[in-house]
Amino acid sequence: MSLNTFGHLFRVTTWGESHGPAIGCTVDGCPPGITLSEADLQPWLDRRKPGQNKFTTQRKEPDEVRILSGIYEGVTTGTPLQLMIENTDQRSKDYGDIAASFRPGHADITYHQKYGVRDPRGGGRSSARETASRVAAGGVARKVLAAMLPDLAISGYMVQMGPRGIDRARFDASTIDDNPFWCPDPIAAAEWAEYLDALRLAHNSVGAVIEVCANGVPAGLGAPLYGKLDSDLAAAMMSINAVKAVEIGDGMAAASLTGVENADEIRMGPEGPVFLSNHAGGILGGISSGQPVVVRIGVKPTSSILTPRQTIRVNGEEIDLITKGRHDPCVGIRAVPVAEAMMACVLLDHLLLDRGQTGGVRGIIGQA
Amino acid sequence: MSLNTFGHLFRVTTWGESHGPAIGCTVDGCPPGITLSEADLQPWLDRRKPGQNKFTTQRKEPDEVRILSGIYEGVTTGTPLQLMIENTDQRSKDYGDIAASFRPGHADITYHQKYGVRDPRGGGRSSARETASRVAAGGVARKVLAAMLPDLAISGYMVQMGPRGIDRARFDASTIDDNPFWCPDPIAAAEWAEYLDALRLAHNSVGAVIEVCANGVPAGLGAPLYGKLDSDLAAAMMSINAVKAVEIGDGMAAASLTGVENADEIRMGPEGPVFLSNHAGGILGGISSGQPVVVRIGVKPTSSILTPRQTIRVNGEEIDLITKGRHDPCVGIRAVPVAEAMMACVLLDHLLLDRGQTGGVRGIIGQA
Amino acid sequence: MSLNTFGHLFRVTTWGESHGPAIGCTVDGCPPGITLSEADLQPWLDRRKPGQNKFTTQRKEPDEVRILSGIYEGVTTGTPLQLMIENTDQRSKDYGDIAASFRPGHADITYHQKYGVRDPRGGGRSSARETASRVAAGGVARKVLAAMLPDLAISGYMVQMGPRGIDRARFDASTIDDNPFWCPDPIAAAEWAEYLDALRLAHNSVGAVIEVCANGVPAGLGAPLYGKLDSDLAAAMMSINAVKAVEIGDGMAAASLTGVENADEIRMGPEGPVFLSNHAGGILGGISSGQPVVVRIGVKPTSSILTPRQTIRVNGEEIDLITKGRHDPCVGIRAVPVAEAMMACVLLDHLLLDRGQTGGVRGIIGQA
Amino acid sequence: MSLNTFGHLFRVTTWGESHGPAIGCTVDGCPPGITLSEADLQPWLDRRKPGQNKFTTQRKEPDEVRILSGIYEGVTTGTPLQLMIENTDQRSKDYGDIAASFRPGHADITYHQKYGVRDPRGGGRSSARETASRVAAGGVARKVLAAMLPDLAISGYMVQMGPRGIDRARFDASTIDDNPFWCPDPIAAAEWAEYLDALRLAHNSVGAVIEVCANGVPAGLGAPLYGKLDSDLAAAMMSINAVKAVEIGDGMAAASLTGVENADEIRMGPEGPVFLSNHAGGILGGISSGQPVVVRIGVKPTSSILTPRQTIRVNGEEIDLITKGRHDPCVGIRAVPVAEAMMACVLLDHLLLDRGQTGGVRGIIGQA
Repeated sequence: MSLNTFGHLFRVTTWGESHGPAIGCTVDGCPPGITLSEADLQPWLDRRKPGQNKFTTQRKEPDEVRILSGIYEGVTTGTPLQLMIENTDQRSKDYGDIAASFRPGHADITYHQKYGVRDPRGGGRSSARETASRVAAGGVARKVLAAMLPDLAISGYMVQMGPRGIDRARFDASTIDDNPFWCPDPIAAAEWAEYLDALRLAHNSVGAVIEVCANGVPAGLGAPLYGKLDSDLAAAMMSINAVKAVEIGDGMAAASLTGVENADEIRMGPEGPVFLSNHAGGILGGISSGQPVVVRIGVKPTSSILTPRQTIRVNGEEIDLITKGRHDPCVGIRAVPVAEAMMACVLLDHLLLDRGQTGGVRGIIGQA
Repeated sequence: MSLNTFGHLFRVTTWGESHGPAIGCTVDGCPPGITLSEADLQPWLDRRKPGQNKFTTQRKEPDEVRILSGIYEGVTTGTPLQLMIENTDQRSKDYGDIAASFRPGHADITYHQKYGVRDPRGGGRSSARETASRVAAGGVARKVLAAMLPDLAISGYMVQMGPRGIDRARFDASTIDDNPFWCPDPIAAAEWAEYLDALRLAHNSVGAVIEVCANGVPAGLGAPLYGKLDSDLAAAMMSINAVKAVEIGDGMAAASLTGVENADEIRMGPEGPVFLSNHAGGILGGISSGQPVVVRIGVKPTSSILTPRQTIRVNGEEIDLITKGRHDPCVGIRAVPVAEAMMACVLLDHLLLDRGQTGGVRGIIGQA
Repeated sequence: MSLNTFGHLFRVTTWGESHGPAIGCTVDGCPPGITLSEADLQPWLDRRKPGQNKFTTQRKEPDEVRILSGIYEGVTTGTPLQLMIENTDQRSKDYGDIAASFRPGHADITYHQKYGVRDPRGGGRSSARETASRVAAGGVARKVLAAMLPDLAISGYMVQMGPRGIDRARFDASTIDDNPFWCPDPIAAAEWAEYLDALRLAHNSVGAVIEVCANGVPAGLGAPLYGKLDSDLAAAMMSINAVKAVEIGDGMAAASLTGVENADEIRMGPEGPVFLSNHAGGILGGISSGQPVVVRIGVKPTSSILTPRQTIRVNGEEIDLITKGRHDPCVGIRAVPVAEAMMACVLLDHLLLDRGQTGGVRGIIGQA
Repeated sequence: MSLNTFGHLFRVTTWGESHGPAIGCTVDGCPPGITLSEADLQPWLDRRKPGQNKFTTQRKEPDEVRILSGIYEGVTTGTPLQLMIENTDQRSKDYGDIAASFRPGHADITYHQKYGVRDPRGGGRSSARETASRVAAGGVARKVLAAMLPDLAISGYMVQMGPRGIDRARFDASTIDDNPFWCPDPIAAAEWAEYLDALRLAHNSVGAVIEVCANGVPAGLGAPLYGKLDSDLAAAMMSINAVKAVEIGDGMAAASLTGVENADEIRMGPEGPVFLSNHAGGILGGISSGQPVVVRIGVKPTSSILTPRQTIRVNGEEIDLITKGRHDPCVGIRAVPVAEAMMACVLLDHLLLDRGQTGGVRGIIGQA
């Protein structure tokens, strides 16, 4: 991974600022012959789109993606796809007073320190708006994965808002789309709605924990030692705005386990090895085991809030800053489709990488 | 990052298996003119070396590193450094019965699935022995960093063993080297010794949490969006054997904070911005802020234990497996110098990368 | 270099097909703080633009480049630049009968073989139209180079059309822009006009040799052994459509020289080493020496001609094919600004790469 | 490609200096399950080995390669191969007076300029000795290619020594191994022997042209636009010491052809398309066409000669330099096995890369 590109064979290069004319990405290395149109990508973008309820920024963007290259007569040609999304609701005046000061907890100051210049309009390049490009790229990855691995299913959801976690006993995947939080626990979802509304009205924001689970990942994906599947997932997830932690399987909780507890014991099933537990989150030694791949990310609270915070201006003046504008009270909500997209891109990348090196042949377990 | 190489400009390619004739790494992109000899690297390897007390594997290896290239008259020439460590204590008979079965929680099964063949002697390529190469490369990085950033200090330590954390109020950096766990809390260290001894005698093992803190990192390191400093640190740390989680700053705990709490407020000091807290762990928007860079990793328990666990053989036969051999009861202990080494390599890589793009010039805050 | 990206730190990713809605490129790794606008890029695109005289394709395109990202208040921000050029004159009907057959000497057949599908409209991705993106990226590189190396000058020109070379004794750089061939020998230019006109009317085309010379390249650029300056130049030049040969300095002629003849002898001048000849083309051991960097490329004749040639259809049917449409009788003409652009991009990339590794410090010759 | 690594999926990282303890390379991305031992590599190294006759350097090295990793029970495991060759005949005193002066036409001066320090013993990193590592890596690539493409044959030979070319009418592949020049024209070989002997005795050296031809390359290899097969071959060949030109197919001569002449016309054969000529050298649009891939390189004369040449010392002093030591009078001779090795590595890399993206499926021509 380097600069604004991620991936080895399925490579995504994103570009664009929050308030420029457009954002987008180049998707390179896509297999040819895959049926693909804007209609395949738009639903994923719509899931991420802001302004859909009071819990996300009220910025209104149609977020319509256009495919400018790489398609002929409805199928991918193996050449780069350019996915472009125009910025239509820019209201740069909202951000006028931001240009000369640094929001605490925001990338304003570090972009200034590194580059000496930054685009302050809507956070410029550091805006979460960039993640729309990832979601578009993830839509391409999903389409290819559907053709290559029909049984693969990627599902993201929120498991904690602020300090309030879901009750795993109430986990019901069918309810994830029924609430604005992608919450699999309807009772938690109802509580979160009240909680977040109060925070929002108090001019505050809050963090969240997101989990993404991929079922149907074949064994053998991952290129140890520095292209390990978990290593690439960690980089991909950590690159999402506001993410401060990445866990695989039991994650930090694995530190508290003994070796006896942590061992995912193995039995032989009719179609191959069957694991009796999944502490490992589907990855051993950087390679997928055939179990569900489970990743969790910790998302910090939105730093742009209406409560005054102490900070400084570029000229060194000390001020108390209130960040006006239309910000998400819980940016973790929109991180769900983004994290799903990153999972899709990383899995496809490794599927291609593995096919390149091994031809996709698998070691036999049981009788030859 | 790809396959067995990590880094953009300061690139490390490791090779070798646990029980082959040697392991090592090629360090490419090292700045020229840096004074360097084996004596600079050996102390770091000695810190990681097994067999130093009853809490690490009893395998005895001198772990002597040789520099085979890239040095002339005691200074680096800018050409690749080859760092080689011979394997002297191989005892491959210890692992004889491992060849045909898969240790639960270990990479045995996934290497077999992916490659159809694996080197079972001591875990082959998936052995933690490979991390000696990282420590050697980290020693090179430290030497270059010392020349370029004399005020930089990297310190790793264990903050939790199994479920038992340190008391941050007792944190005393000067005691880290006084106990076999790199524990900064002497009282916790004493308790851990008893705890781990009991686990070891019970044929069990346990996980740990390691923290690495880098003080003196200049603002401006990190190449957003996919070469973010935290993204590269996440990949580097997750690539270490047995690591299942990576946190930056408050990490997962940031999810429980509100925006008001999480804002690292800024005041103006005599030499530039001063942050009143460091929830961010020194990284905002993927770029270092000048605050200490703080990373924490969760390490799972050693999977090779003497307690029988259910598993299968390559031929599909179901068995109960006891893993003999000389294994660490808490592999997290030896992860400390490894995580420090990865921090050093990533920081140097980003220092060079930033110098390449920006020339190392920094945006001015306060009067020009 | 991989797939549709070239460069190490200054990285260019191009996208787009000849007859899609647009083409463009993402320029990543650009230093911040460089004054840049479309007006800086357009003149280079205008030099390459087709339809300017009877010796280039009559396709009319304004080739207006837009910068969609990476600029704020007129300066680069260090984030990716998106350069987009809309396709306005597409006339895809011209290519209707091309879809089912393979032009001899053209990429039609290999794209079909590799991908199973290809965009036949105007050659799709294999069209020389893609080179407009390179010229745009080269314009960015030139702007950065002008800021970092004010004495650098890059000049491309045609030294041979078909079998007819220039007379080096008549070389007059000031005449390069005075003829449609970028020919530095006015007498040759006049002859070429007649020669090419006759070929064009005879429904034929012809090859050419282009030379690009960069004066003012500092010593020390190039990253041996596999990022050698000449190696990267060779890759960059060979990637240009229709190029079949790359020479550095004396190139193939060096094979006929003896060691005595080929030695570029060195004397000491007031400002450092002075070479008495430049057989090496300014590169020794993959590193620039401070002499002019001289590259020559051999361009094959346009394969799309009105003279019938034997070929086959996709269904295997043998046919005689006449390629209608608006094709360059000597595609080498438009290769001149493209080769200049590639030179600019490679030099800047190595300037940044060298600054990253060495800090740009140079070894001293003479008294310190 | 970057710094000391080449290749995308089959990646080779070389290290080592001429007079250090050893040289070698790490071969990463090798497919698993390939039978491989030192005995597979040694014959290729023996072909390149110096001191075999009076036309190559009299330095005596056994050039014994050891495989230190990546093999288990005689087959590749998919993990990195470390190939190491010890330097046994170092005689560094031969080079004593070289340390303070710069050989004209040699990398001495540019390494000094770039790095401020260089290893002068035997040319250090810039020595042609490094190419032994490439030959070893090429041996690995050949073994994998033999398993994946049994009909592939790679053959290199010298077609010109100094100004004296072979007579293509006398081309007899069976005679290539019968003379010390890898010359396919026995009469030319005899003449070259006399010619080179005279040059050698006159304390001079001479250049050469080498051709490498790969038969049996399947259609579809190459990743346009910047991972084109010819682009990667150009980079790989230009990275070989002393190479100043790379041609594909007709190369520079294509510039003199008309479009009518240059068209490789196509007919339909029983097994697919049949080309009536091969001006293109087997590559169209950066993708292999199924025809033989033909590459030619121009090698400059050895710069280290016994005839005095004007140069300077590091301190700026002007001198006449005679380069003692044991140098090849025609370094092009030993470039033959090196160029073959680079061809093998590039072809395998693209075979894996293509399999990754397309799965190796080919577009159908003729009836399905």
